Amino acid sequence: METFVLPRGYRFAGIHAGIKPDANRLDLGVLLSEVGCSSAGAFTQNRVTAAPVKICRERLPAGDARGVVICSGNANACTGEQGLEDARRMTAIAAEAVGCKAEQFLVCSTGVIGRQLPMREIEPGIRSAARKLAASPPAFDDLAHAILTTDTKIKVSSRSISRGDRDIRVTGLAKGAAMIGPNLATMLAFVFTDAAIAPNDLAGIAKRAAASTFNCISVEGHTSTNDTLLFFANGAAETRSATASRLNIAREQFERAATEVCADLARAIAADAEGATHLITIEVEGLRSDTEARQVAKMIADSALVKTAIFGADPNWGRFVSAAGYSGVAFEEHNLSLWLGDLLLYKSGIPQPIGAEAASAYLKNNREVQLRIRFNLGPGRCTFWTCDLGYEYVRLNAEYTT
Amino acid sequence: METFVLPRGYRFAGIHAGIKPDANRLDLGVLLSEVGCSSAGAFTQNRVTAAPVKICRERLPAGDARGVVICSGNANACTGEQGLEDARRMTAIAAEAVGCKAEQFLVCSTGVIGRQLPMREIEPGIRSAARKLAASPPAFDDLAHAILTTDTKIKVSSRSISRGDRDIRVTGLAKGAAMIGPNLATMLAFVFTDAAIAPNDLAGIAKRAAASTFNCISVEGHTSTNDTLLFFANGAAETRSATASRLNIAREQFERAATEVCADLARAIAADAEGATHLITIEVEGLRSDTEARQVAKMIADSALVKTAIFGADPNWGRFVSAAGYSGVAFEEHNLSLWLGDLLLYKSGIPQPIGAEAASAYLKNNREVQLRIRFNLGPGRCTFWTCDLGYEYVRLNAEYTT
Repeated sequence: METFVLPRGYRFAGIHAGIKPDANRLDLGVLLSEVGCSSAGAFTQNRVTAAPVKICRERLPAGDARGVVICSGNANACTGEQGLEDARRMTAIAAEAVGCKAEQFLVCSTGVIGRQLPMREIEPGIRSAARKLAASPPAFDDLAHAILTTDTKIKVSSRSISRGDRDIRVTGLAKGAAMIGPNLATMLAFVFTDAAIAPNDLAGIAKRAAASTFNCISVEGHTSTNDTLLFFANGAAETRSATASRLNIAREQFERAATEVCADLARAIAADAEGATHLITIEVEGLRSDTEARQVAKMIADSALVKTAIFGADPNWGRFVSAAGYSGVAFEEHNLSLWLGDLLLYKSGIPQPIGAEAASAYLKNNREVQLRIRFNLGPGRCTFWTCDLGYEYVRLNAEYTT
Repeated sequence: METFVLPRGYRFAGIHAGIKPDANRLDLGVLLSEVGCSSAGAFTQNRVTAAPVKICRERLPAGDARGVVICSGNANACTGEQGLEDARRMTAIAAEAVGCKAEQFLVCSTGVIGRQLPMREIEPGIRSAARKLAASPPAFDDLAHAILTTDTKIKVSSRSISRGDRDIRVTGLAKGAAMIGPNLATMLAFVFTDAAIAPNDLAGIAKRAAASTFNCISVEGHTSTNDTLLFFANGAAETRSATASRLNIAREQFERAATEVCADLARAIAADAEGATHLITIEVEGLRSDTEARQVAKMIADSALVKTAIFGADPNWGRFVSAAGYSGVAFEEHNLSLWLGDLLLYKSGIPQPIGAEAASAYLKNNREVQLRIRFNLGPGRCTFWTCDLGYEYVRLNAEYTT
């Protein structure tokens, strides 16, 4: 995560517009492709969707997108017609500033739900951000900061794919922190590449990548109104003579690289969840389908009893098994074995005489811990990421708006 | 809850057997009917069920039950064949001590999952408890304490129904505290009456009463392996000349009274949840069915973001609306209005200009708070009880087994 490459043909800006009270915190960002590009997205499955999600859904997939304008500190959700007008106005101002049509711009917001946007700050803010898009070196770091809310760090990942004498680059940035309950993408994530990919292909890649990455994380299982994953592909790395065959090979490689980028970002969101002291990887295997495995993994990940036990380095593994038991997936206890790291705690329905001290020490001494549940009912499997639940999560969320 | 009546023909005992380390805390109880009685139950829907749940399911409904033996501090769950043998042995020892067959006894356990029962303490404990069943006045208070784990108080409720020159009495006791996620009864609850009710009728009453009471509470949504609701009806209040018609009237009255008792206990469990500082009543109305209303209410009740906001007296109502949005129930934002107490916060999809101070003060000044969500889609409704999530819940659950 420390070093990353930037795809060609993109520009970035992030500024403080005045949505967040702290003048030192950036709260408005723009990602711009220098040329019209393919764009596709994946969005929250919440019935209550933020205004910017509605606008993005209308406009995607697109073959001539130019970028996205993002504000943090206000979700522009549950804001009625006014919210929709404001979201459209954000794209219109950004488009005017860079010289394209409003419909070529996308828009995202993240923050408190149920408040109208402070457009008096946001409108000049967008114009001011647009003026910084020409900055050299590119202000990517500002953009990565401008999308954060209670995140403690930026989340960026990138891959390069060599292709003859050139390379294709794919880079993603995300924000997370809380209200993370995966049901299509989580909060905001942007993946942009200089590969050339048609809009519909990009939509398929976005959907498949989200399924095994952003849809496999959870902080507290609360699905946001604003979850948005946007993909941009501007083709700046492509030679004009690229044949269909070469493009097809690159597309498979691209999908693998883009999925890796998404997995990095998803893990980073779980690891940097509000107040988290453990990143928990839950590996479920041996069920009838991947869907069943995900169902079990998600139920374990969402249990406050599981999360507080791990926070307290308490190897209270009955909580893991009992969470699997109410997931809705059919099994008998003797179908199930459970490991914490390398420690086998429960084997085919029988508790193992493992020292509680060893299990507790494993939780105490590792910031990243692994929980593995193995069934003997089929080939279905899932890797899921979550975090623990401690005092700091309570403090942050008891004091969020007031 | 302060005063209650005891039905005729029951005896009680509660002692310290040595399951809990603290010698001042009772951990083993017996409820005995002086004569063979009807008994029925409702149990957890978790796929992983404790050994005593398996035994109760085998034996119920029953026409000749005598009582139940209960231990707290150990759940006897995830304990394999050994656990089943131990649970059966508990009923055999209790039955021997009071002079009936093992099959006439039921058994419950609550506490840590995944540890074998300390039968060396439990066996003499049951015999010692049996000797106290003759106590006068009856040792009901001891029994009510013996079933608790991290509960801070006993939970008892009763009703009398006058019937000519006699009355019928129905009394319930319960324990809750945590791992409360309603999917058929929650933790342990016992309802006993001196009415005469046939086993199958009693089973129907238990099922219906649980649906609107114990199945409508949640602490953190984690469905226990041990949830058990047992009903006992020994007929000690009935005259021999009771006609079928009189019994039928009484049965309706009885069901109403028994459901009220269950609702009292369910509310008490939510109010005394681990670390709770608010009892939250969620009223959902105007959906297509009661099932849909319960689905929305439960999703709100289970959200850590909703619970921490109320803990912090933070009227962050976007969290309530967004939780409804991912409940799986179809609606549009303009179908929905939201009140906190008497304060209308969101009306048909539009945020209302209510002072955040007034809403925060309502949460600060009331231990019992009400959240009302009204849809305009039908007659379906549900009342659901939950609690907030604060530091104390984290502390208790981070330090539970170790």
